[in-house]
Amino acid sequence: MNKYNRIFNFAAGPAMLPEEVLETAKNELMNYKNSGMSVMEISHRSSLFNDIITEAENNLRKLLNVPNNYKILFLQGGASTQFSTVPLHLLKTKAAYINSGHWSSRAIIDAKVFGDVDIVASSENDKFSYIPDCSNLNLSGYDYLYYCDNNTIYGTKFKEVPDSKGIPLVCDMSSCILSEVIDVSKYGIIFAGAQKNIGPAGVTIVIIREDLINNCREYTPNILKYKIHSDKNSLYNTPPTYTIYMCGLVFKYLLNNGGIEEQEKRNLEKAKYLYDYLDNSLFYKTLAEKNSRSIMNVVFTTGNKELDLLFVEEAKEYGLENLKGHKVLGGLRASIYNAMPLEGVIRLVDFMKTFEERHHV
Amino acid sequence: MNKYNRIFNFAAGPAMLPEEVLETAKNELMNYKNSGMSVMEISHRSSLFNDIITEAENNLRKLLNVPNNYKILFLQGGASTQFSTVPLHLLKTKAAYINSGHWSSRAIIDAKVFGDVDIVASSENDKFSYIPDCSNLNLSGYDYLYYCDNNTIYGTKFKEVPDSKGIPLVCDMSSCILSEVIDVSKYGIIFAGAQKNIGPAGVTIVIIREDLINNCREYTPNILKYKIHSDKNSLYNTPPTYTIYMCGLVFKYLLNNGGIEEQEKRNLEKAKYLYDYLDNSLFYKTLAEKNSRSIMNVVFTTGNKELDLLFVEEAKEYGLENLKGHKVLGGLRASIYNAMPLEGVIRLVDFMKTFEERHHV
Repeated sequence: MNKYNRIFNFAAGPAMLPEEVLETAKNELMNYKNSGMSVMEISHRSSLFNDIITEAENNLRKLLNVPNNYKILFLQGGASTQFSTVPLHLLKTKAAYINSGHWSSRAIIDAKVFGDVDIVASSENDKFSYIPDCSNLNLSGYDYLYYCDNNTIYGTKFKEVPDSKGIPLVCDMSSCILSEVIDVSKYGIIFAGAQKNIGPAGVTIVIIREDLINNCREYTPNILKYKIHSDKNSLYNTPPTYTIYMCGLVFKYLLNNGGIEEQEKRNLEKAKYLYDYLDNSLFYKTLAEKNSRSIMNVVFTTGNKELDLLFVEEAKEYGLENLKGHKVLGGLRASIYNAMPLEGVIRLVDFMKTFEERHHV
Repeated sequence: MNKYNRIFNFAAGPAMLPEEVLETAKNELMNYKNSGMSVMEISHRSSLFNDIITEAENNLRKLLNVPNNYKILFLQGGASTQFSTVPLHLLKTKAAYINSGHWSSRAIIDAKVFGDVDIVASSENDKFSYIPDCSNLNLSGYDYLYYCDNNTIYGTKFKEVPDSKGIPLVCDMSSCILSEVIDVSKYGIIFAGAQKNIGPAGVTIVIIREDLINNCREYTPNILKYKIHSDKNSLYNTPPTYTIYMCGLVFKYLLNNGGIEEQEKRNLEKAKYLYDYLDNSLFYKTLAEKNSRSIMNVVFTTGNKELDLLFVEEAKEYGLENLKGHKVLGGLRASIYNAMPLEGVIRLVDFMKTFEERHHV
């Protein structure tokens, strides 16, 4: 990492991008493929951009093994826009939501604008420190089942896909997409903001089963209609062209490095290295229940507010940044998304050891 | 332009960016201000990004002399999203729209989802080749008056701000914002997609008078509420951080080059150079009425479809790209936004002369 004096960035998102991807972006910035233009300057209707978005879509399809009866959309507005777009399309009678943390709570608030929403499983009673049991939910009469797969703030993650009993399953995968092999065919809609594992902030990936595209309610703003974007292959209006180009570079990088299978192995190795150290430490404690742990966001604390703050400050001097926990929970958090190299996690654990030695009484 | 083998890009948007701005972006790409991170990787909650967005907003406020009772928002979804957001907030009884081209037609379609829309002035009868007279419209009973200031496809532009007779005036300035001095206080809402004069595609600027922020209708998706974004200073959800950074670089560039006053002079000079040549040519003809001409999009034709196509091809070899007219109108179009240097227009006219010499019979 030293060539550019770069640090290890443990932020929850926007987050690190592969250095190789950034280098390509830098090299191509003034003149993309001898076009005499930057990607930021090329028309979204040009063949140059058509190649970029088509290749990005095809590579994402390959990476996640997306079946042919699913469309991939590159949209704007963040995952938060999907919190409204999903119920505008799917909520007819009532919707079932699993509440496992901050982001599902936000989705519930936004869905309630459009009709009845029931929370069919929740871990709110214990500060979202675990993933509720969703193996046998009563879903009769519901239009769809919604959940957020990985909870950045609480550091938890579903280990099993909830059984939606045949109704469409909708999943916010913003903070774990591309981190592990998934079976897309189990889902009705998967969506994800780009800024953790996909690319820079400003684009949202929506993977949607074709039969769910059409039936939005009457007063849906045209710009939020899946059908409009699907019919135009995400070129209904000017898309965030440069951001999509960056995502495409990330997809290529992943394919060139063994695809999601290998990325998942690397992620498990990084998480194991950090959790193993934490589990053997008498100084630090983790906050999420063991069998609900995220492999993307590792939440821990020294148990002492002032020490936690000191940890963040001293880590910074060690080239390890953004380790402060979310304000809702306090403590410390290491987000170790796809682009965080094992080297960064090893350096973090090295630092944690020296910090423990100096402060453990 | 030769350092990077860059060409002159006459595309209607996404369009050229100032070379100096792109160079800064390139130089800072791997490590922004010694942070050890790319701007693409920094948290939207960090002080680094807070400085970027605050400076961008302040500089835009300075450039356009935005009064204190107006908020500036950096949103996602393009101008097309505002086509729905505006009526969701302002349309109570009926709305008045001026139809001067493709983009106002699109706004009318999207507004009709939410209620009664009347077209109070139109130039559709003559293929939008002129700007209708809007000096004395009957606007009694309307909630707001809407228009699109510059029409990229037809190459027309309002020379006077329509008199809205006291009701809020809403303007889509996507293709002319920052090109000329404006009086923001005449408007209720100004919005503009970034990809012509502001920065890369993926962010939309909304300048809104404070009294218009609050009153949206009940079923407005939360993410489309002006109030939510205004209360959080455009940080309600993760904004398109890198795109906002790029816009900020453009704002700084404009301020360092004499502000909008000087930019307007440069734009008038470029447009005059091109129109003067066209008006003296017996070979080319312009399509917009003289007193409705845009200084951003110059629409012309040889009058012969095959020659127009040949023009586009030969110009390309001369380093002049994207001169093909919009498919709706055919012919030729030179978009000469802020970042197009006079040098590019001179080269275009040089080429036009040689083309005329070779093909004028």
